[in-house]
Amino acid sequence: MMGKTGFSLILALALVTVGTSSERKCVLSGSWRSNLDCRMVVSELSEAGAFSGSYHSVAMAPKADILSSPLHGVQHNANQKEQPTFGFTVKWQFSESPPESMSVFVGQCFMDDQGEETLQTTWLLRQEVGSPNANWEAFRVGTNIFTRIK
Amino acid sequence: MMGKTGFSLILALALVTVGTSSERKCVLSGSWRSNLDCRMVVSELSEAGAFSGSYHSVAMAPKADILSSPLHGVQHNANQKEQPTFGFTVKWQFSESPPESMSVFVGQCFMDDQGEETLQTTWLLRQEVGSPNANWEAFRVGTNIFTRIK
Amino acid sequence: MMGKTGFSLILALALVTVGTSSERKCVLSGSWRSNLDCRMVVSELSEAGAFSGSYHSVAMAPKADILSSPLHGVQHNANQKEQPTFGFTVKWQFSESPPESMSVFVGQCFMDDQGEETLQTTWLLRQEVGSPNANWEAFRVGTNIFTRIK
Amino acid sequence: MMGKTGFSLILALALVTVGTSSERKCVLSGSWRSNLDCRMVVSELSEAGAFSGSYHSVAMAPKADILSSPLHGVQHNANQKEQPTFGFTVKWQFSESPPESMSVFVGQCFMDDQGEETLQTTWLLRQEVGSPNANWEAFRVGTNIFTRIK
Repeated sequence: MMGKTGFSLILALALVTVGTSSERKCVLSGSWRSNLDCRMVVSELSEAGAFSGSYHSVAMAPKADILSSPLHGVQHNANQKEQPTFGFTVKWQFSESPPESMSVFVGQCFMDDQGEETLQTTWLLRQEVGSPNANWEAFRVGTNIFTRIK
Repeated sequence: MMGKTGFSLILALALVTVGTSSERKCVLSGSWRSNLDCRMVVSELSEAGAFSGSYHSVAMAPKADILSSPLHGVQHNANQKEQPTFGFTVKWQFSESPPESMSVFVGQCFMDDQGEETLQTTWLLRQEVGSPNANWEAFRVGTNIFTRIK
Repeated sequence: MMGKTGFSLILALALVTVGTSSERKCVLSGSWRSNLDCRMVVSELSEAGAFSGSYHSVAMAPKADILSSPLHGVQHNANQKEQPTFGFTVKWQFSESPPESMSVFVGQCFMDDQGEETLQTTWLLRQEVGSPNANWEAFRVGTNIFTRIK
Repeated sequence: MMGKTGFSLILALALVTVGTSSERKCVLSGSWRSNLDCRMVVSELSEAGAFSGSYHSVAMAPKADILSSPLHGVQHNANQKEQPTFGFTVKWQFSESPPESMSVFVGQCFMDDQGEETLQTTWLLRQEVGSPNANWEAFRVGTNIFTRIK
């Protein structure tokens, strides 16, 4: 799915990471792992704070099939704020074809005294249902805490 | 992923749009009003289902000051599904400067027998807080139902 | 489950309803119908604002089988507040045996100029899962609006 | 608020705890601490699984003032299930008088190989607002994980 673009993106990130450091704290660009053992890779941010990337969910996937789904989001004033809020969508891609689903995450980045970053997020998962009568059961909710993969 | 098919499809849609309407139902492009008297304008969708737009919240704004905030999102297989799921972020812009906040919406479009479209959404609102200790109070949740403004 | 107690409760409610009126507004005692076509019957409140009752969910039940599940809750200062907040649990009883589940509702009663009462609630539904790894998918969220059945 | 009843309850719990052990796992009776440094004490359960108790929130309270608020709830088939679901309400009592608020928690108890119990909960907090127009901002959501205080 990500193919060449994804690979060169990761390469670019790797190169950039070497040179910069503290002033990039709590900018979402980079790789993150959640307490649910999900991983995500986030691109460089645009001037307006927009980013894209990919989300890999072990929990939601069949055991031998770690899936990658595209994510898109935005971060508040990435260059000025130390503990910015952010939000992103994950458009789930499954190898087999269950009902379509979509997730949204919203949260804030915190940095502790040692410079460790934590993304505190809450998410909603919407599953496709057949009719408005089944709408009541279509939303799941939960929390996810991400730390940076170094 | 969608390649040529996507392109010719958009072309076809563009041509069709002039004359017809129904087959474009439940594509998010256009103007919507929510039960909370919020309005949003959504752009044309990209091949991958991505869209941008603006969100106007009367409820959240001072009375004489209807604010416009940028939204970005994505819709599942917009061209193939009759009742697609979607998600988007709203990066709030306030005229004065309260703590920064970010919203995410996720939902599904339904169409009734008369062709009326309804967007059933649930949202999360994240407000910026000073420290992780205040994280518990930073997330609000709610639902919003949108109908198309004609 | 409700048997004789339930019957005399309903009888008591019927008797009480005749005599009193406006000052009982936004006390939860009585019968309510939600926008999802659920119904609930709420007992008299204790001095501390506690109540019990039963919840009938058409949406969650097989078509020919309207289920009744016990509810328990509490209301803030029922006698002094015009628009009190409240919360309650519903312990689901199913005729067949799916995984066990439990719901909690929290909300506030509003009264409009005509004296019509509306219960604005948000709920969480927890379904039993086999292990903590499946915890992420165990919570559903939604909203319900109740009006009094007269 | 809890006075003599509360005291003898705690005494009773202390006595009972000495004698019993493994078969009482994942029965909510006892004392629990959350990851947000909240504590709760839960009474013996009734035959129907009902319980009461008190909730002490450090996070929500002014620093020198640890508040105690009454909780009421119910647990599924406490005697038969190893990993039961449960729900409870907390009717907040504040020393000063902010708008009234009410919380509901719902979750499931898990036990690991060492017999350690964990309560995985999600909660909603409803704050009193002045009118239905402010309803959209009245619900907060979050998660709490409790472990037993021994």
